[in-house]
Amino acid sequence: MISLKRLIFIIFLLITSPLLSMPAFSAEAQPVEQQAAVSAAESGSLTHQMWRNIMLGNLKIEADHTAVDALILQGNIPVTYEYVATLMRTPNAFGEGPACIVCHSSNDPKRSYRGLDLSTCEGILRGATEAPVKPAIVPGEPMKSRVVQKLRNNRMPLGVSFLAPIDTDTINGIKNWIDAGAKEDDNFKNTILPLFSTPKAFGSDVACISCHSSFRDPPSFHGVNLTSYKGIMKGAFSKSNAKLGKPPVPIVIPHDAANSPLYQRLIENRMPPGIGPNDESDHPNTHLLMRWIEQGAWCK
Amino acid sequence: MISLKRLIFIIFLLITSPLLSMPAFSAEAQPVEQQAAVSAAESGSLTHQMWRNIMLGNLKIEADHTAVDALILQGNIPVTYEYVATLMRTPNAFGEGPACIVCHSSNDPKRSYRGLDLSTCEGILRGATEAPVKPAIVPGEPMKSRVVQKLRNNRMPLGVSFLAPIDTDTINGIKNWIDAGAKEDDNFKNTILPLFSTPKAFGSDVACISCHSSFRDPPSFHGVNLTSYKGIMKGAFSKSNAKLGKPPVPIVIPHDAANSPLYQRLIENRMPPGIGPNDESDHPNTHLLMRWIEQGAWCK
Amino acid sequence: MISLKRLIFIIFLLITSPLLSMPAFSAEAQPVEQQAAVSAAESGSLTHQMWRNIMLGNLKIEADHTAVDALILQGNIPVTYEYVATLMRTPNAFGEGPACIVCHSSNDPKRSYRGLDLSTCEGILRGATEAPVKPAIVPGEPMKSRVVQKLRNNRMPLGVSFLAPIDTDTINGIKNWIDAGAKEDDNFKNTILPLFSTPKAFGSDVACISCHSSFRDPPSFHGVNLTSYKGIMKGAFSKSNAKLGKPPVPIVIPHDAANSPLYQRLIENRMPPGIGPNDESDHPNTHLLMRWIEQGAWCK
Repeated sequence: MISLKRLIFIIFLLITSPLLSMPAFSAEAQPVEQQAAVSAAESGSLTHQMWRNIMLGNLKIEADHTAVDALILQGNIPVTYEYVATLMRTPNAFGEGPACIVCHSSNDPKRSYRGLDLSTCEGILRGATEAPVKPAIVPGEPMKSRVVQKLRNNRMPLGVSFLAPIDTDTINGIKNWIDAGAKEDDNFKNTILPLFSTPKAFGSDVACISCHSSFRDPPSFHGVNLTSYKGIMKGAFSKSNAKLGKPPVPIVIPHDAANSPLYQRLIENRMPPGIGPNDESDHPNTHLLMRWIEQGAWCK
Repeated sequence: MISLKRLIFIIFLLITSPLLSMPAFSAEAQPVEQQAAVSAAESGSLTHQMWRNIMLGNLKIEADHTAVDALILQGNIPVTYEYVATLMRTPNAFGEGPACIVCHSSNDPKRSYRGLDLSTCEGILRGATEAPVKPAIVPGEPMKSRVVQKLRNNRMPLGVSFLAPIDTDTINGIKNWIDAGAKEDDNFKNTILPLFSTPKAFGSDVACISCHSSFRDPPSFHGVNLTSYKGIMKGAFSKSNAKLGKPPVPIVIPHDAANSPLYQRLIENRMPPGIGPNDESDHPNTHLLMRWIEQGAWCK
Repeated sequence: MISLKRLIFIIFLLITSPLLSMPAFSAEAQPVEQQAAVSAAESGSLTHQMWRNIMLGNLKIEADHTAVDALILQGNIPVTYEYVATLMRTPNAFGEGPACIVCHSSNDPKRSYRGLDLSTCEGILRGATEAPVKPAIVPGEPMKSRVVQKLRNNRMPLGVSFLAPIDTDTINGIKNWIDAGAKEDDNFKNTILPLFSTPKAFGSDVACISCHSSFRDPPSFHGVNLTSYKGIMKGAFSKSNAKLGKPPVPIVIPHDAANSPLYQRLIENRMPPGIGPNDESDHPNTHLLMRWIEQGAWCK
C-alpha cells in the first residue's frame, strides 16, 4: 500500500497543475518569446494583441495545450498578487508539499520558520527577519529571489535527508575554505578536494563527482566539474551554453560562503518540505510566481 | 513520459472534484427535482427540510455518493459568492485549466483578456468591458450566462486549435451569410452549404456533417442537421426532445451572426484554456456556479 | 468508465494531500513527541529549535517525507486561522468531498445546514445554532470538538446510506433505552440486545457484532463488545490499551443518549458528505485543524 502511495504521488506531481501540459520552457527562453509578441501597450488590449499575434504568427504554438503558455506567459499578462496569495495558501501549489503559509505565516521567528511571513504581500517583501536576514524577493529578478531559488533548488547530494544536520565537519570544511579565500592550498588539496569524490561525505551515499565531473551536460549536471580546482572555480560552465556565448555561473565566491552555490546547495533544502528531487522545477505555478516577481512584485 | 502525462491528465480530470461521483444530471432535470423537495422556507430549516424530504421519499438517491447531490443541489441551499470567489481563484476548479483570475482579473482590457474581472463580484457582474461588450452573467439565467456557456462550450469543429484564427474566409463567410439574412440563395447553395461537408474548412480535419447530419442523437450530436437549408434553419431539433414536446433551439438568427450558435461555435473557445473537448461539461463546480446564478448571483 | 472513476477516486484520496506521505500517527502519540522536542519559547526561534532538535536527536524521522511531520506537528508551530479558513473553502481538503462552506456558510438555519457557519472564525466558534445547539469547537480539546469528530467519524453500521432515516424504530429503541437509564431489564434482553446481532437492524446489511464482538482489536474494532450488557457498559476497552493503563471509553451514558457514542454513531454521518468509510481518518489536514484547536482555536 505504501509503495502504491508513493507511486501515485509521483503520478500526482505530474498532474497536479492546470498548466502542466505546457512544454517545459527554460527561464532564459522566455524573454525571446516575449520580444516576438506584440505587447498589450502597443496594440490596445490583451485580446487584440492575442489575435494580432496569432495573425502575425508570433505566438509559438506546438500543440493545443500550449494555449495556456501562449495566453499567460507569452502574452505577458500581469500576474496579480491575489493569485500569488492563493498559491501561498494552497497545498501542492508548487508540487508535492504543504501550503507555504502553514510554516511561514508571521514575521515573528518564534511563530514562523525564519520569521518569514508569506501570508501577506508586506511579509513577502519583508522576507526572513531572523538572522541571517535575507530578502525573499528581489523585484524584477526572479532568478535572484530566494523564494524562487528555494522552490527550484535541490539540496545536495541527491538523497540527503531534509533534516540531515548542516553543520557537520565536512560541510563546515567547505564553508571555512571558501570564507578563507577559496585558495588552492594544502588544505584544499588534502582535505577539501577529496570530499567531492567521497561517498557519504555530505550525508547521502552518493559522491558529488558522480554527477558533477565535467563541463558536458550530460553526463555531468549543469556543467559543474568538481574534479579539480580549476573546474570548481570555473563554475557551472556547460559546453552547450558556452557555444551560445553564455558565461559560466560561479559556484564559489571567495570569502563569501553564504552566497556561494557550492555551499548553499549543501545546506539548503528544497521547498516545500517533502518534495522529491526529481519533481518538476519548472512547475507552471513557479513560473507564474516568477513572472509576478519579474513584473515588479506589486501588491496591488 | 509526455504520453503518460497526458493519460494521467485525463484521469485527473475524472477525479479532480469532490462532487464528481455524483451521477451526471442534465440542467433541465433539476427544476423537477427541486419541485419534489420541500423548501427550506416552508419547513423551518435546511436540516429539518432534509430529514422531512428523506421521510417523504422526495430526495432522489441512487447510491451513497449522491448524498452530495441531494444535499446541495436538490436541497437548493444558497450558494454563496464566497464559494464562487474560491472557484475563480482555484486551478482546475472546472476541469483542467488555470484559475480564472490568472487571465481575468481586471476590467482594464490592457491588463486582462476582454477586460473581464472575475476576481471581484462587481467585476463578474460588470462582465467584459472590451467591445463587443457582453455581460458574463444573466442573474437567474445560468444557461444564458456567458461564463457558463464558455465553461460548457466546445469550439467547433472538434480538434480545432485554441489559437486557430477566427477571421478566416470560411468563418467570415458564415458570418456574412447570417448577417445578410441567412437566405437560401445562390451564395448559400454554392458556397456556404458545401463548407459543412468539407474537411478542413474551419481549421480541423473533421467536416461538420461528420457529427451533425440528422435530427437523431445519436448518431448526430444535439440533433443538429447541417446537410440542408431546412435542417440548418430548424436548429438543434433532436427527435427525442421533440417527443417530449420541447421546441427546437435555433442555431441561426438571421441578421445576427453574433448571437447565432452556428457562428459562435466556430469562434469561441471553451474555458479554461487547455481543457479538452471530451472533458465533463457537467462538472459539479460548474453546476454550483450555475446554481449561484440561478439564485440571483448575489454578492452577499 | 464509472468503475474506473471510483477506483481513481480511491487513489486520489491517497494522494490529495501534501502531507499524506507522513506515516499515520495517532492523536495520543503526539503529546509525547512534543514533549521530546525543545519548544520555540525556550530556544529563541522555530528555526533554531528545529536545528537544535535535529542535533539532540529529538525529532523523530523515519524517512525523508516525514520532514513535514517533524516541521509542522512535532515542531508545534502555530496553525493560523488563515490556513483553517483555506481548508474550510477548499474541496477535498479533508478527503473526498465538497468544501465545508458549500453547505455550512451561515448561522441562519434556513440558509445553512444546522445553522453552522464555517466561513468565518466567529461562525466556527459559535457552532450550530439550530436546536439541539452544539458547539463545533472546544478550544484546547480537538478530540471533543464536533467538527473533528464529524471528520473522523464513520456512521454505523458500515455501508449505511448517508441519507438513511435516523428515527427508525430500532434506532429510537436504542435512544429510549439509554434515556431511560440503560438498565439490564426485560426490554434490554428481549428487544435491545438482539438488535446488535441482527443484520439490517440499522439500515445496512451488516450486523453490529460482525465487527464489535470482543475487547480484542483485531478482530473486534476499537475493542467494542456488543454481545452482552456487561460488554456494552464497559465501552471501548481494547486489551492493548488496557495493558497501557488506559481506561475504557464509555459508549453508553445512562439517561443521556445524545452524548452516548452508541447512539451517536447510528445517526451521525461522517463529513464531508460522500466520503467513504475507509478514507483516511488521520488526514494530515485534519491533524492541522486539530492542532489549531489544541492551540486554542485563535482567530488571530
